[in-house]
Amino acid sequence: MSDTTIDSLYDSHIALYPDFPQDGVLFRDITPLLRDPVAFRQVMDHWCSKIPSDIDLIIGTEARGFVFGAPMAYALGIGFVPVRKAGKLPGDPRSLTYDLEYGTATVEIAEHAIGDGHRVMVVDDLLATGGTARATVDLARQYGADVAGASFLIELEGLGGRDVLDDVPVTTVWSVPN
Amino acid sequence: MSDTTIDSLYDSHIALYPDFPQDGVLFRDITPLLRDPVAFRQVMDHWCSKIPSDIDLIIGTEARGFVFGAPMAYALGIGFVPVRKAGKLPGDPRSLTYDLEYGTATVEIAEHAIGDGHRVMVVDDLLATGGTARATVDLARQYGADVAGASFLIELEGLGGRDVLDDVPVTTVWSVPN
Repeated sequence: MSDTTIDSLYDSHIALYPDFPQDGVLFRDITPLLRDPVAFRQVMDHWCSKIPSDIDLIIGTEARGFVFGAPMAYALGIGFVPVRKAGKLPGDPRSLTYDLEYGTATVEIAEHAIGDGHRVMVVDDLLATGGTARATVDLARQYGADVAGASFLIELEGLGGRDVLDDVPVTTVWSVPN
Repeated sequence: MSDTTIDSLYDSHIALYPDFPQDGVLFRDITPLLRDPVAFRQVMDHWCSKIPSDIDLIIGTEARGFVFGAPMAYALGIGFVPVRKAGKLPGDPRSLTYDLEYGTATVEIAEHAIGDGHRVMVVDDLLATGGTARATVDLARQYGADVAGASFLIELEGLGGRDVLDDVPVTTVWSVPN
């Protein structure tokens, strides 16, 4: 699949909704991409080609990171670890709380989900300010993971997420100004 | 993959946590299944073999339904529609609110996600009392969908979910007493 073909799918398959979920935010809706099986597979296969071959685990963030991370793990034949919001995981998960613009959020990974030295890739649909991805990278490292990178369907370049992730390689399917 | 092999994966790859998320509930944790790429692919491929060949869309329920529904759609080469919790979708989604043991919950499907007459399959990880799946079936029908069935990784037989879904064919990977 040529990069030109993949590029053209952004305009045709990502819907834009101004002022959602709040004023001033231009929401990128992935529904049209997901419901078109040809485009979905083209994008997933292109995205998978950007993932290094020595990864042990894909780490996907609740909830839209599951939609892309799980098929990626299936397609690549590697394991999948869901990163969940607080209170969803039984046993003794590790947690990390991080700051949002207003308030805080918490990410959790199940006990035993990541082994010491596992090479992992953090996957999510959107890189905006990078807070969730930063917390996920740090939490994975608490398990002893070797974080090989973070990869996103869409990067909003103007929000500085790549700077927040300056110690891991960042790859994207689509990078747009804002 | 023989049914015996798949059956054996339940004991080895679904972890049990008593009294989570509340007293008296035996939580089924899918983490060990997801992190083992061989078992994950075996289960997904076996599950896909139970899905009729004439389905247009897999409808997966937030959040664990995304983990299984999205790879299923990818593997089968059909579209995926996420069923979201209230307030996550832009535009003019359809909503359906249903009763829980205490309080209510709401499921939403994006506008334009399902076309009139589309044959759809509802997919989630767990069939317990069936409330969420029932609401999803009814919501899909509001879009004019032809609901071909509902399919689950794990059915807890003692909780009556299959009775609640008595007007759609129900298939499962694993059915356990309770």
